[in-house]
Formats: sequence, C-alpha cells, structure tokens
Amino acid sequence: MATKYVYFFGNGDADGDESMRAELGGKGANLAQMAKKPLSLPVPPGFTITTDVCQEFYKLGRKYPAGLKAEVDEYLAKLEKAMGKKLGDEKDPLLVSVRSGAAISMPGMMDTILNLGLNDKAVLGLAAKTGNERFAWDAYRRFIQMYGDVAMGVDHDKFEAIIEKVKKIRGIKDDPELNVDELKKIVEEYKKMYKKEKGEDFPQDAKVQMWGAIGAVFGSWMNPRAIKYRKLNNIKEGALKGTAVSVMAMVFGNKGNTSGTGVCFSRDPSTGENVFMGEYLMNAQGEDVVAGIRTPQKLSQLEKENPKVYDQLCKIRARLEKHYHDMQDMEFTVEEGKLYMLQCRNGKRTGAAAVKMAVDMVAEKLITKEQALLRVEPEQLNQLLLPQLDKEAVKKATEIAAGLNASPGAGCGQIVFTADEAEAWAKAGKKVLLVRKETSPDDIAGMAVAQGILTSTGGRTSHAAVVARGMGTPCVCGCSDVTFKDAKTIVVKGKSYKEGDFLTIDGATGKVYEGQVAVKPATISGDLETFLGWADEVRAKSTRTTASGQKVKGFDVFANGDTPKNAEDAFRFGAKGIGLCRTEHMFFDEPKLTAFQKMIVSENTDDRKKNLSKILPYQQKDFYEIIKAMKGYPVTIRLLDPPLNEFIQAESKDQLKALAEKLEMKPAVLAAKVAALDEHNPMLGHRGCRLAITYPEIYEMQVEAIARATAQLDKEGVAHEVQIMIPNVVSYREVEQIRGQAEAVIAKVNEECGTKLKFAIGSMVEFPRTALIADKVAQFADFFSFGTNDLSQTTFGFSRDDYGKFIESYLDQRILEDDPFATLDPDGPGALMEIAEAKGRSVKKNLHLGICGEHGGDPASIALCYKIGLNYVSCSPFRVPLARLAGAQAVIKAKK
Amino acid sequence: MATKYVYFFGNGDADGDESMRAELGGKGANLAQMAKKPLSLPVPPGFTITTDVCQEFYKLGRKYPAGLKAEVDEYLAKLEKAMGKKLGDEKDPLLVSVRSGAAISMPGMMDTILNLGLNDKAVLGLAAKTGNERFAWDAYRRFIQMYGDVAMGVDHDKFEAIIEKVKKIRGIKDDPELNVDELKKIVEEYKKMYKKEKGEDFPQDAKVQMWGAIGAVFGSWMNPRAIKYRKLNNIKEGALKGTAVSVMAMVFGNKGNTSGTGVCFSRDPSTGENVFMGEYLMNAQGEDVVAGIRTPQKLSQLEKENPKVYDQLCKIRARLEKHYHDMQDMEFTVEEGKLYMLQCRNGKRTGAAAVKMAVDMVAEKLITKEQALLRVEPEQLNQLLLPQLDKEAVKKATEIAAGLNASPGAGCGQIVFTADEAEAWAKAGKKVLLVRKETSPDDIAGMAVAQGILTSTGGRTSHAAVVARGMGTPCVCGCSDVTFKDAKTIVVKGKSYKEGDFLTIDGATGKVYEGQVAVKPATISGDLETFLGWADEVRAKSTRTTASGQKVKGFDVFANGDTPKNAEDAFRFGAKGIGLCRTEHMFFDEPKLTAFQKMIVSENTDDRKKNLSKILPYQQKDFYEIIKAMKGYPVTIRLLDPPLNEFIQAESKDQLKALAEKLEMKPAVLAAKVAALDEHNPMLGHRGCRLAITYPEIYEMQVEAIARATAQLDKEGVAHEVQIMIPNVVSYREVEQIRGQAEAVIAKVNEECGTKLKFAIGSMVEFPRTALIADKVAQFADFFSFGTNDLSQTTFGFSRDDYGKFIESYLDQRILEDDPFATLDPDGPGALMEIAEAKGRSVKKNLHLGICGEHGGDPASIALCYKIGLNYVSCSPFRVPLARLAGAQAVIKAKK
Repeated sequence: MATKYVYFFGNGDADGDESMRAELGGKGANLAQMAKKPLSLPVPPGFTITTDVCQEFYKLGRKYPAGLKAEVDEYLAKLEKAMGKKLGDEKDPLLVSVRSGAAISMPGMMDTILNLGLNDKAVLGLAAKTGNERFAWDAYRRFIQMYGDVAMGVDHDKFEAIIEKVKKIRGIKDDPELNVDELKKIVEEYKKMYKKEKGEDFPQDAKVQMWGAIGAVFGSWMNPRAIKYRKLNNIKEGALKGTAVSVMAMVFGNKGNTSGTGVCFSRDPSTGENVFMGEYLMNAQGEDVVAGIRTPQKLSQLEKENPKVYDQLCKIRARLEKHYHDMQDMEFTVEEGKLYMLQCRNGKRTGAAAVKMAVDMVAEKLITKEQALLRVEPEQLNQLLLPQLDKEAVKKATEIAAGLNASPGAGCGQIVFTADEAEAWAKAGKKVLLVRKETSPDDIAGMAVAQGILTSTGGRTSHAAVVARGMGTPCVCGCSDVTFKDAKTIVVKGKSYKEGDFLTIDGATGKVYEGQVAVKPATISGDLETFLGWADEVRAKSTRTTASGQKVKGFDVFANGDTPKNAEDAFRFGAKGIGLCRTEHMFFDEPKLTAFQKMIVSENTDDRKKNLSKILPYQQKDFYEIIKAMKGYPVTIRLLDPPLNEFIQAESKDQLKALAEKLEMKPAVLAAKVAALDEHNPMLGHRGCRLAITYPEIYEMQVEAIARATAQLDKEGVAHEVQIMIPNVVSYREVEQIRGQAEAVIAKVNEECGTKLKFAIGSMVEFPRTALIADKVAQFADFFSFGTNDLSQTTFGFSRDDYGKFIESYLDQRILEDDPFATLDPDGPGALMEIAEAKGRSVKKNLHLGICGEHGGDPASIALCYKIGLNYVSCSPFRVPLARLAGAQAVIKAKK
Repeated sequence: MATKYVYFFGNGDADGDESMRAELGGKGANLAQMAKKPLSLPVPPGFTITTDVCQEFYKLGRKYPAGLKAEVDEYLAKLEKAMGKKLGDEKDPLLVSVRSGAAISMPGMMDTILNLGLNDKAVLGLAAKTGNERFAWDAYRRFIQMYGDVAMGVDHDKFEAIIEKVKKIRGIKDDPELNVDELKKIVEEYKKMYKKEKGEDFPQDAKVQMWGAIGAVFGSWMNPRAIKYRKLNNIKEGALKGTAVSVMAMVFGNKGNTSGTGVCFSRDPSTGENVFMGEYLMNAQGEDVVAGIRTPQKLSQLEKENPKVYDQLCKIRARLEKHYHDMQDMEFTVEEGKLYMLQCRNGKRTGAAAVKMAVDMVAEKLITKEQALLRVEPEQLNQLLLPQLDKEAVKKATEIAAGLNASPGAGCGQIVFTADEAEAWAKAGKKVLLVRKETSPDDIAGMAVAQGILTSTGGRTSHAAVVARGMGTPCVCGCSDVTFKDAKTIVVKGKSYKEGDFLTIDGATGKVYEGQVAVKPATISGDLETFLGWADEVRAKSTRTTASGQKVKGFDVFANGDTPKNAEDAFRFGAKGIGLCRTEHMFFDEPKLTAFQKMIVSENTDDRKKNLSKILPYQQKDFYEIIKAMKGYPVTIRLLDPPLNEFIQAESKDQLKALAEKLEMKPAVLAAKVAALDEHNPMLGHRGCRLAITYPEIYEMQVEAIARATAQLDKEGVAHEVQIMIPNVVSYREVEQIRGQAEAVIAKVNEECGTKLKFAIGSMVEFPRTALIADKVAQFADFFSFGTNDLSQTTFGFSRDDYGKFIESYLDQRILEDDPFATLDPDGPGALMEIAEAKGRSVKKNLHLGICGEHGGDPASIALCYKIGLNYVSCSPFRVPLARLAGAQAVIKAKK
C-alpha cells in the first residue's frame, strides 16, 4: 500500500489525531484532535501534508514524491466541498492559509502564508460576496506581501516602503486607516514591484500559488534561522522528519469590528498563575498580534467587548487543559462574531511558570509528581536562579521607564541596537542589553548572547517575549517611552542614551533603570523547594542494574567548589557534598603564590619542603572553612593537579625580571627554570600525581593541611567527612604509593593531635588507561571520580583549548552529533566509564563512583551517568538545582 | 617442611641440577650439573645458597632467614670433609671462593671473592703445606684486596697505590715479579690501610670472612651497576628472585708455572665459527684474565704447552655442547697440572655468531629450526645490519693501529677517555668513541652510548669485549699501540690525538683509522638469509585464535617508508609491504613547501586549490617511485597528518619578515595567521583528517596524486597495490565522508585515464574512541592500522615530547614496568587494540589489521601484536629483519 501523505480534518472529524505528531507535526495533530470527538471544537477544515513528504522532498533534491499531487488534489476537492467554495473561483473564492508545523514546536521559525487564493478577479468576487470591499482588498494586499516575501524571497522592506509612502500621502499612521482606494493603489504598486524584482507577473493561478506556498514551507525547514533554532535548542538533525504543511480554510479576523484575532494561554506563561490570559486585536489577522506592530488588547477586555465569545473561549480553555493535562497556548479568530480555533499546543513558559504549574497541577490532581518532574526542562531552572536586583540598590537607582514584565530576571549591560552588534560586542567579551523596536526571527543569534532584551512595541506574546522566555533571558517589552533617535541613540523621556551606555532591566517588574544596578543571587524556596524535594525523593528511592549487573541505589548531586563561598552556595542549592575541591586555586593568592613559586624553582628537596611549609597554614585554613560549611556532608579534596609551569609565567623580559626579583634569584637562572618547565602538550605533561612521584613533598604538605584542618574541626566537635582524591592516575602503583605516603602523614597528625582520623582516599579516572585497569586501581582506591573533561580530551584526542578550530565544522557537517565537552559522549568516554564501573566493582562491590567534570551539570550527561551506575554527579553550585531535577528525570525515564 | 636453602655439589654428585636455575642461579645449577652424572666433570666441591635466601634477605631488611646459619654450617662441614681440610685451619686451611650467580647471567655485575679463609696464621700454614711461600703470600695479598674492596667497600685504588709503590722501589712492572718479602710488605701495608679506612682490624676469623663475603654477594644484587645492567637488558625487577651464592673450594691457577687459569668458548663467540677458542694465563687467578690487566695467551698455545690438559678440555667442550645443545662459555683452572672446571654457561655471542651457530647447529642436527630461531635475540640482528666501512673509503684511509677484533661493526666518533665524558658528550648530541686502557663494570653507562670502544689492553674475553658484544657496539681491544699521555691526550705511534678528535674503528678487522671513514649499509645474505627465511616460514604458517574468537592466519612484516630510498631499503630487508608512507615529509622540500605554505595562508578555497595544484605533480612523482620500488607489494599511504602550523614556523621577527616576503604577504597579516594556527596542545589539535573536514581540498589533491601515479604505473604494466589511510579518525562519519570524497576523485581519474583503479581505504586507530567504536568505523574502512604512538599518548595522557620530565622516576620507582613508547603497554593501548580487533572483525570477519607506530619494531610489542591478532607489523626498514625474527619467535612461544 502506498504511504498516505495527506490527512483531512474538519466537519467534526479528522483522519489523524494527537498521537500522530511525528507525521502531522504538532499543529496538524492538534488541529485533527480538536476537530474530532470528544473535543469537537470549531476548527476551520483543512488537510495536512505529512512530515514524510518533507523528508522525501530533501531526499529527492527538493522534489515531491510521486502521487503527492493527486492526493493533494483529492483532499483539496474535499475541502472545497466542505466549504462549498472553490480555490481560485472568481465569484466566491475559497481562501486558505498554508502553515508549517514540526513535531516539536519551533515558533516563528518557519513560514506561514495567509489569504492564499486571491487574484485580480477573485478579489472582486470576494468583495462582492462579502459586501466588504475594503476587507477584500486588504486581504489581497496582505497575500501579495506575504507570498512575495515568504515564498518568493522579495525583501520585506520593499513592501513596507510602498505602504509607508501611501500612508504618508494622507498622513495616516495605522494600517486599518487605509481606505479601499489606497489599498487598491498599494496592490497595484506591490504587483509592479514584484514583477521588477522577480522578472515575472505575480501568479494569478490559485493552484500555482498553493504549490508555491507549500514549497516555501517545506523549504523553510532548512532556512538558516530554523537550523540555528534547532541547534540552539539541541534538536538533533535527523531527530525530526521535517515539517508538515497544513492547508486550512481561511477565517477572517479582519472583516471589520465584529472580527478579530488573538492568542491566549490557559495559565500565565510568565508566572504560572492559574489565570486565563491572552491578547487580541480586533479587525486584524494573526500576524498583526505576533509581529508586535500594534499593541494588542488584554483578554480581560474581550470579556467586556464580547462576553459570549469570551465565555466560549473560557470553556474551551478548561476542556483543552483537562484533555492535554497541560497549559495550552491557543490561537483563535473571531469572524463576524463567530469563534474559530486555529491552533492549540502545550505553551512555552518561563522556568518559574513551569515549576508553579507543575506544582499546582499536582495539587489539582491533573498530573502525578513524576509527570510534574518531566514538565520542567532542567535548563529552565537557571531562570529561577537568575540574579535579582538588590532591593537596597533599587531604592537608590534611577527608574527611567516601565514596560511589560515579559521574562523574569535582572539584566544589566551596555545597550546595542541591532542583533549583529549584540553578537559582535558579546564576542568582544562585553555584556550587552539588546534594545529594539521589535524583534524578528532574524535577531535570534543576537538575542541569545544578550543579558536582557528591551523592546518599545509588542506585547507579552510578541516575538521578543516568547523567545526571551524560551532562552531564559530577562525581557521588558512594549516600553513605549523608548524611542529611536538614530542608529546609535535612543531617547527615553527626553534623555538620550548612546550605544554602549549601561541600562538595567528587571524582567519581573518591567522596570528600566539607568546605569548598572547591583544584583543578588536567588534562593530556593516555595514551589521550587517543593518541586526539587520531589526530585530528591525520586533520586533517593531509585535503583537500577548497571551493564555489569551491579545493583546501584540512589543518585546524589554534589557540587564542585574550591572556596568557603562556593561551599556555602553548594549547600544552599541542595548539594549533598563537594565532589571536587580543587586545591591549586588556593595557591594563586599572595603570600602563598610566592612561596609556591619558590618551591617550584627550588634546587633540592629541603628547599622545596621549607617553602611548602609556609603554605601549609593557609591551605589548612581554607580546608577548615570549606569542610565546616558542608556541615558533615562529604568534601572531596583533589590534590594538586596542574603542571607547575602554570604558576611560573614570564613571557616578556620585564615580567621575567620582576619575577626573578620577587623570587630573589638571577633572571638567567629563572629563565632556564622557566624553559625547563615549558611543555609541548601541557595537557599531557608533568602534572597531577606525576608531580607527587617526582616531588612527594607537595602532596605530603597538602595531606597534612587536610588532616590538621579536620583534626581541628574534630576537636571542636564539628561534623566532617573528608575524602582525598588523587588526580591523573594511570597506574595502580601511583595510588598505592601516594596512599602509603598520605597514610603516614595522617598517622603522624593523629599521633600529634590525639585524633583517630581516617580518610577515604580515591582515584580520579580521567585517562583511558585508568578505566582499562580499574580493577587494579580499585584495590588501592576507596572511590573513583571521573574527570570527564580530560577523559573526553584524551579519548577523542581533542584539546579543549584548540578544538574550536574545527568543532563547528564537525557539528555542521554532522561528523559529531554533540560537542563532546558539552555533552558526555556515550560511545567514547562513556564506554570507558562503563568499563571502569564493571572492572572497579568487580573488585569492590560497593565502590563509590562520581563525576566531577563539567558534564556533571548537563542533563543528557547526567542521564548517562545514572545509566552507567554512578552514585553521584558533581557540578558547579549554580547548576545543582538543575542537576537535582535532571537526575530525577533520568530516573523516571529509565523506568519507562 | 622447612625450605631447603643450601645445595651441595662435588664428589661426583650434587643435590641440584641444571633445571634449578631459578633457585641456584645459572652458575650454581651448571656447577651441580657438571659435577654429577652423566657429565661427571672435575668440579671443585662446594655448596650453593639459593636465590630464595636473597629474596628473603631483602624482604627482611638485609637479614638472613632463620635456619640459614645452621644449614650453611652443615654444608660447610660436608665441604670440609670432602676436601679433608678445615676453614680457618692454621696448618692446612681450606680456602674457598664465594661467587654470585642469578638465573640470568649478568657477567661482571655482581661480586666474587677468592682465596677466602686466609689469615695471618693460615697463610703460614698454607706456605708450609704447599711448600710455596710466594703463592701463599700472593693469595693472602689478593684476598685482603678483594675482600677489602668488594665486601667492605675500601677503594680499589688505595690497594693499587700500595702495590705500585712497592713495585716502583725495585723498578718492576708485572705482579708476578713480586717476591715473597715484597708480598709480605704489601700484606702489612694493606692491613694498616684497611684498619685506617674501616676503623677495625682485617678480620682473622675465617667464618666472619665467609659471612662477610656472602653478605657482600647478596648485597651486590642491588648495587647500582647491577640495577643498571638489568634495566639496560630489560630484566624486570621481580622477574628474578635475586642472586644465589656459591661457596666453592679454591683451586689455584697461581701455584707457579704448571698452574694457570683460562676462559674458553666451544665456538667463536665473535664469528660463530665452529672452532675451539679461548685465552689463558699461566700462574694467575681468574680475575687476571677477565680484568684485562695482562694480555693472555691464545688457547692454541695451550695445545703446545700442555697437550694433555688441552686434550681433556677439548673432550669437555664436546660433551658440554652435546649436553647443552648450545655454545658454552667455560672457566677452568689448572692446578699443578690438574684441570678443574669452575663454570660453564651458554656463551654470550655477537649477532653474527648467534646466527651462524644457529644455522650450523641445525645442519649438525643439534637443534631444530624453531630452537634455532629462539637462539638469536632479535636486537642482536642490528649488529649484522651495522654499517660497514666502505671498501673504497678504507683504501684512502690512514690506518694508524690494529688491535683485536672484539665486536664487529664500524664505529666512528670523537674520542673521549672516560665513561663519564662519553655520557656527557653523547647527551650533547655528539657521536663518541670511548678509548680506555681497560674498561670496568663502572664504565657500563658510558659504553652504552659510545659508537665504538677501543682499549689498549685486554683480550677478546676482557670486560670491554664481552660487554661490547652484548651491546652490539663495535669494539677493538688490546690495541697496545695506544698509550695515554695525559687525561685529554692519547699517543699512537708517536702521534697525539686529543679528546674530541675523530677516529674510526673496524670491529670486524681490529683496525683503527684516523679521522672519519665513510660507511655503507649491510645486506642480507648467506646464513642470515637462510635464518630469516626460516622465520618467514614460521610466520607464514602460523595461525592463532584471538581473544574475540577470530582465527587469524599468517603474520607479515611491513616497513614504514616515506621515500623511494626507504622503499628500496624496505624491499631489500624483506618487508612485504609499506605499512606507513607519511606524505607530510614530501611537503618540506622546495618548491613544494612554498606552495603548501601559500595554501595554508590562503583566504579561500579557490586559493587553496590553486596552490595545492602546484604540489600535485611532485606528490604524484614520489608516489610513483615508492609504489614502483615495492614491486606489487602493498603500499599504505597516509593522508596528511600533522597540524598545519608545523609548516609555518616564524619564531623571530626576522624569520617572520623573511617568510612573509617569500609568501608575498604583509608581515602583520602573516603574524596573525601564525597566531591563529598556534595550538596549546598541538598533539590534540587541528590535524589529520580534521584538516580534511575543514579543508577537503587537501586530501582531494593527495588522492588525485595517488590515483594518477597508480594510473601511470598501470599503463606501464607495473604491478601495484595501493591503500589509502586516513589518520586521526574519531568518528565513523569522518571515514564515510572522506571515503566518499576520495572515491569521487578516483572515479574522475579513472574516467580521464581509462583505468579501473580501486583502492582499499582504511582508518588509523590512534585515539581511544576509534577503538571503542571500531564496529562502526569498520563499516566504512577496508582496514585498520594502529598508530600506537598517539594511542599510547592519549591512553596514558603522556606527551612524548614532555614525559621525559617524569618517566625516569616512574621506571626507577617501578610505577611503570616499561617505557610505554618503547614497549606497547598491554593493559592500556593493548587492551584498546583488543577491543578494536573484536569490534572491527565483528562487522568484517577478515578486516586487515596492522600497526604502524614505532612499537612495530620492538620484539615484546610484536609478540603482543601477534597475540591480539594483527595481520602485520610495520617498522622502520632497518628493523625489518629484527621484526621478521621477533614475529617468528612470538609464533613459536605462543605455541608452547
């Protein structure tokens, strides 16, 4: 049987349903679902061409599969019959919209064409039939503009210029003020301009128009902004078959003042509150709302203007939420008083809204806790942890304007006025605030790098607001006090601000402040606390069997932290331990640095010991505070890791001279030392425990500092659990030998202090060999911690410092699906981790395993770590909430 | 039952035999074997303390295990009974030697003490009993000296100074000329000096002496030169239990002119000829021969001097060879006309001798071909491939002296006169010729780095000769024309040569030439050809089952070669293909270099292509010649591998300016390019096929050059088999994409040239990920080649350029057993190779596997490659013969 390419919906029934998202796209599947029982909502009829066609289209070199044209003709006939009108009919033309829709919603990324089916004759028919000449000509004007721009690539600005010229003649401001003659004039000019641009007349054949529009939608699947969107949203090429195309009978919101169009949300997508909200414009078509050209009315206004329609909408809101068990984002049109639903989908939301809705819906018994946990993208939690404006600082700050609170968080930066500038400034390391009249899909890259977005027009459902919420970027919209003076200057209430000046916005209140206003970190409380508590519960109760057959219980989140401040943050964000406390950062402050540098240039062991002993009390103090801050949770301290040359940098002669003076040695002698420390590939050089094999006294000092700090806490009755971690292990003998040396130091401290301290001593697994000999290493190690940064570097042979030269090509050409330093690769380092797990636990059944590379804060990597059988992940303190959730999601998904 | 620590031999029987090498050491086991039936040779009785005691000795902190003293007492009593004398007896003292001996012979590395048992009274008894006062005092003098030096650490030179002073008084030159009074005087002075040095009298109690000597021998197991010897000879710590100690009744070669001592070989250890040869000294003890102080007589002289003893020796030679099936190195002593055998062992030999003996013994049906193949250390073959003096150059060279041809090969270098200087000069990159009066075990490190060794005294069994042959270093011994004028000058026949002057020696003829004489490479012919033919046969017939259950047949040797000259060498040395033809070296000559540099700095693809097209004809010519030289054997060409910055080096401003001028660009622009190309870790940078993902045109040019060269040969009817190899693969997609691009180029060339060329296209496996995803890679690769240099670097996280900073510590502290870049590590890269083999062949049963890293020329690594199931190893052309043998040995050993 031939594949079915086209699915009909309308007349109270549909060929497909919501289960066919993969084939019909989200839009097509939901249109079908809404049209048929039990929802039976008022949906204009139409048909959807499947994503399979899109896939074939690209396989065949942008050609359609055989049989498609006939099938479309068949369903077009069905649609014409349902509507009692014919496409291209001169008397009573059927008009259609042609819309895109992939299985995953990509709002605004692909093309839509409205009012298709009009031509020079049909426009007259439409005018006669509707008795509304202005409507007909406005529709035709809109169609030529959209078709020309979207399907044929004629520059949008060329159309705008014509319209502006006509409006200027009569001195009018808004499009609805245009009269019939002006619209006719515009159509005339549009067609002339179109012919000049494209070298041919604007197509008059409605079928030609329809196929042109279908081709444009399929083509838009691969337009740069759609590709960029998928990349930014980590949608893998190949994960989707493409876009579907829905051809739907037009209903008109622009048929005068009893018509209108709007967008609404079943709950507030910004705060998550269970209130019905939305925006609409009377006498307008959908794009007018979304584009932010006119500032729309609030939905509450509709209740007053048209209580019947409003009531109908409220009922639909309730039915859809009950059906989909999720917040719905709906598009509707009112044509001469009659309501039509044009779209529904699970609505995008801010992180705060996502958490609130999830918690509320559990209380409402709409969903389970596990479903709730799957409702929030881990990355969204970052928004809740966005710095907020410091209240005291706000009191002193100068508020210059206020707009709509479109996306929460405080954003402060130097203002720029184009997306390109935003990208350029950000690349140069500057923090920018993007200020625009309105944003468009072309601005997406600039929006992604901005600290915040401020627009002068557009509502809370405008492009800027939707995208900013998706990105978790603070955004204030529709701030009409902002006016654009020239390309480099804005004016706010008479005061000019130039490109590069600082402004601060508060996306939670919509307020705009002059200059830089101080910010403070967020805390975890309320709904978020409840929500993450569920996540902790799910992880704590989890069990799974690893590939090696080992049963592992629980899945903790630790944090990486090198300072007492880090440890406090980690504890506050719910970390159950410190998985990586780097000790090298402690050496970079004076007077420790000088002593350490002197140690490095020492000629013999005694000198090295003498200089190390000067550092010991400082390290001891740092350790004391970090361990104390963790209140008895484990603190994993890694002994010195980087090569010594990182501490002795002297690139110029002057630097060398200054350093030599500080270290009280001859510049020539220092120069020789520096040269001897230089390495071709420092990443694979003399570092980590290799330093302890050549200079055991370094680790001995560090272990002594750890032991003394712990002994001090012990005597004070403060809870402590300290683990010592050896980096860069490649031979079990390294662990055996260093462990022996460490235990001797600990015994000495115990004797001196009268304590009975014992420390777990473990090995990092960050080179492939360590994983391959994990059974031998486990004989001497109490735990393993996977250093997946270095493990990825060596498994791939990619230097993190250098791979920027080729990684973009690798991702663009799909040589690799993911950046291996962002997402842990299951086939390379992941496979080695599985080997290490199996070999390590073959020797020690309960060997404790964790990860302390940066992958520990990446959701996909966290899921892999869970699968492999790690006991915990450790990540930066600010990613701990994210990891708590991502870990729980991994548990829930693994159960399925 | 308690362990037996002591084994008796003598009186025609023995407790142990040759099978107990591990416990009794080579010397002890062979003494036992010689003493008992069926050999029943005249061996002085004695007993051997086992290597187990040595092992215990070190475990217990240099203390003896309980029960040892009693057991030694028991066997000493048995020895006293057998000899009818008592140790320490004042009238008729039993004198003994105390000798070392490990399971593997370590000639000269550990201690021996002779004449033990003498004291101030026993010397008088010995004089009276033997009626030879001079002998008795000479023996006592020798004992004090040896015991003082060896057991008690008194400086050797302090004894020599006393003897020289006494000789000077009477103006005599040789030790035998010393009279009784002088010897008494020397003994007196020795004892005084000993007391001054050690703070106590020279021990008079013979048992104290004996335990002192036993302790010294066990202690010598861990002396620095023994440790160094084991390291140089790749004897792992732990592979041996230690040394045994043999306490044996003395027989005396220094009892006047009917006594003597000598060393002989059942075949010529230098040439391998089946002639009985050796050296002896009348009225001397063993150390006189070995130390090279007096130049000994040839064994043929003994036939004239003492035909009876000579005849007896000849018979023993025949019996020992028949018994041991190998060439024997024997020590004998004649005491007043009676022959005693003091030692026999398989004799060390030169590579040439080893091959000749192996081939001869097969012809004599003494051993099988497989046994013959195990008789030659692969590394020894290097000696046969040592450069020889060019005959034409020799005609013109100035011969200045001649000595004994002690170790073959031509050695040319700057002369130095101490081992320390040799080491220092060699470290500075100079080629040195070590010129010494004689060498001693302390010189071993200096000898190891010398191009050749020249001594003025000592015979072909002297220390210098034995060690040089072991090392495969050319050596001329006993060149008495060489005299030492001062610390920095030698004089040869009146002409002075200063430190740093060049001399050339021919170890095959014993001749010494002034200056540098030209050398030429060796060829494979005669016995070596026969011998390697057997090796090839064994490899060709071999089959084994890999860890993954795959049955693999045959084991070939390929060579790495980048030039037509390399390819010719490879073919001549028996390589069955080129396993690695690096293409980057081809870019380093002008005018290719400039074109390539211009390609690198190009701003766009067209410019790159233009510059690459200039290089194409040169690459084509190189490929043409290399493929032709291999006469139809496979040639594996690796596409460009190193990072581009290796081709653009401009460290100083002047270099930058010159390069910019050459490349016709502004220095500032070039400087920016150079900076952009710079990498933190170039080993893990933008190189190999990563270049082809970013700049496909580079590989396309190379593939075109390969295809055109092959097409040319094809048309000329010349045999060819070319394989294209992709370096640095980490994703199967790299192979898929580059393969596709290459096949398009090949198709284009086939079309243009009317050929039907097909090339195998394979992947290198040099990063861990490649091995881990080998099943996916194998779908697109026709073969794998393991690049074990990079694989070892990444598996260990060791940079070959930097690991020198710590590897010595790692080996010294036994953190690692082997240098992973010298010997392929089975646990790290080896384990990944096993994974790659299993995964790769799970997809392609007959996937061809080879190795092209430098490990391909290392015997232990070759054995590992065989075990893993590789089809071939590839190594440098000059190591091909070695690899042919090592491969065969791996086959034979795997069968056992």
